[in-house]
Amino acid sequence: MTANSPLDFYFDFSSPYGYLAGHGIDAIAGKHGRTVMWRPYLLGVVFAVTGQSPLTTQPLRGDYARRDFQRSARALGVPFVIPEPFPVLTLAAGRAFYWLHDRDPAMAKSFAKAVYHRIFGEGGDISTPEAIISIAEARGGDGGALAAALSDQAVKDRLKAETQAAIDRGAFGSPFIFVDDEPFWGADRLEQIDKWLETGGW
Amino acid sequence: MTANSPLDFYFDFSSPYGYLAGHGIDAIAGKHGRTVMWRPYLLGVVFAVTGQSPLTTQPLRGDYARRDFQRSARALGVPFVIPEPFPVLTLAAGRAFYWLHDRDPAMAKSFAKAVYHRIFGEGGDISTPEAIISIAEARGGDGGALAAALSDQAVKDRLKAETQAAIDRGAFGSPFIFVDDEPFWGADRLEQIDKWLETGGW
Repeated sequence: MTANSPLDFYFDFSSPYGYLAGHGIDAIAGKHGRTVMWRPYLLGVVFAVTGQSPLTTQPLRGDYARRDFQRSARALGVPFVIPEPFPVLTLAAGRAFYWLHDRDPAMAKSFAKAVYHRIFGEGGDISTPEAIISIAEARGGDGGALAAALSDQAVKDRLKAETQAAIDRGAFGSPFIFVDDEPFWGADRLEQIDKWLETGGW
Repeated sequence: MTANSPLDFYFDFSSPYGYLAGHGIDAIAGKHGRTVMWRPYLLGVVFAVTGQSPLTTQPLRGDYARRDFQRSARALGVPFVIPEPFPVLTLAAGRAFYWLHDRDPAMAKSFAKAVYHRIFGEGGDISTPEAIISIAEARGGDGGALAAALSDQAVKDRLKAETQAAIDRGAFGSPFIFVDDEPFWGADRLEQIDKWLETGGW
């Protein structure tokens, strides 16, 4: 890692806190002359390692989480709805992201933000290849090639490998952000990240 | 709940984030003309409901938590060590707290802060009745009466009842803070609590 390498922003497309952090992370990095690599990964795979389960399905914690998502979104002035069904199936979105990224990183990030907006800004469905291809095409992506890529084993393996690499690095939640090698977990760590970038750490 | 009722600050004496929040919560409430009722409870009982376990014992999450405790404490300028053994046995501390509280609420809060400081400020042991009695006596508590109280079934039942009341209200972590009936989980929610008290909510 060099002092100018991008921040790594790990998130799951089904994560409300990832969505909320996605509204702030690029601006915070930009204030300090840094960029952000968005890196979708699969919390379902992580949960097999940590023994966790989706927050909203847990006794006591689930009810609080739904309330906190809404309250935190209102505090940020960000539109927020919990889609039904929830959690969301994100395999197609994650696979499409890395395929797009290898062709056009800026398009991939725009795609990721649009997917998040569709899910949590509008409560829409992104679980199908059709929905994903439509969002990619609206950003200039090649829908036909993406449709073929979504069933390509190498594309499937790529998302698995990215997820395993995140776990190997110590990531276990969404958002999970590395500033160089310093890990930060949670949308409520953006303020610390801002301070870390400003001061070089403490 | 009236607009002037105390905030309820639920915490486990073995919780680093409870310790960190304990350094800020009274001042935040005080800014807005409010007081805080400190309410130790037993996360071990909560975990039986939520299916969770102590954070530091969990794969991936444990390593991150130990790093985040230290980093958050440094950001606040608060002394912090993780005692060994950890987690800490807190039954005596919790029982003593409510017994003291029924006699002198200010002494009980001072006792709680001293217990937290002994654990996480100094890495000391508070698991024994002797350690607890010594801390209470240093604040003017009646050590002999407290020694008897610690083996009194009614005193034991009180801590259990406080823990169950917290769970019934929806608390599941440490710190877990109610502003009137609005729940906030985590040391990183103090800023939202400050804003909530200032604005009356959003």
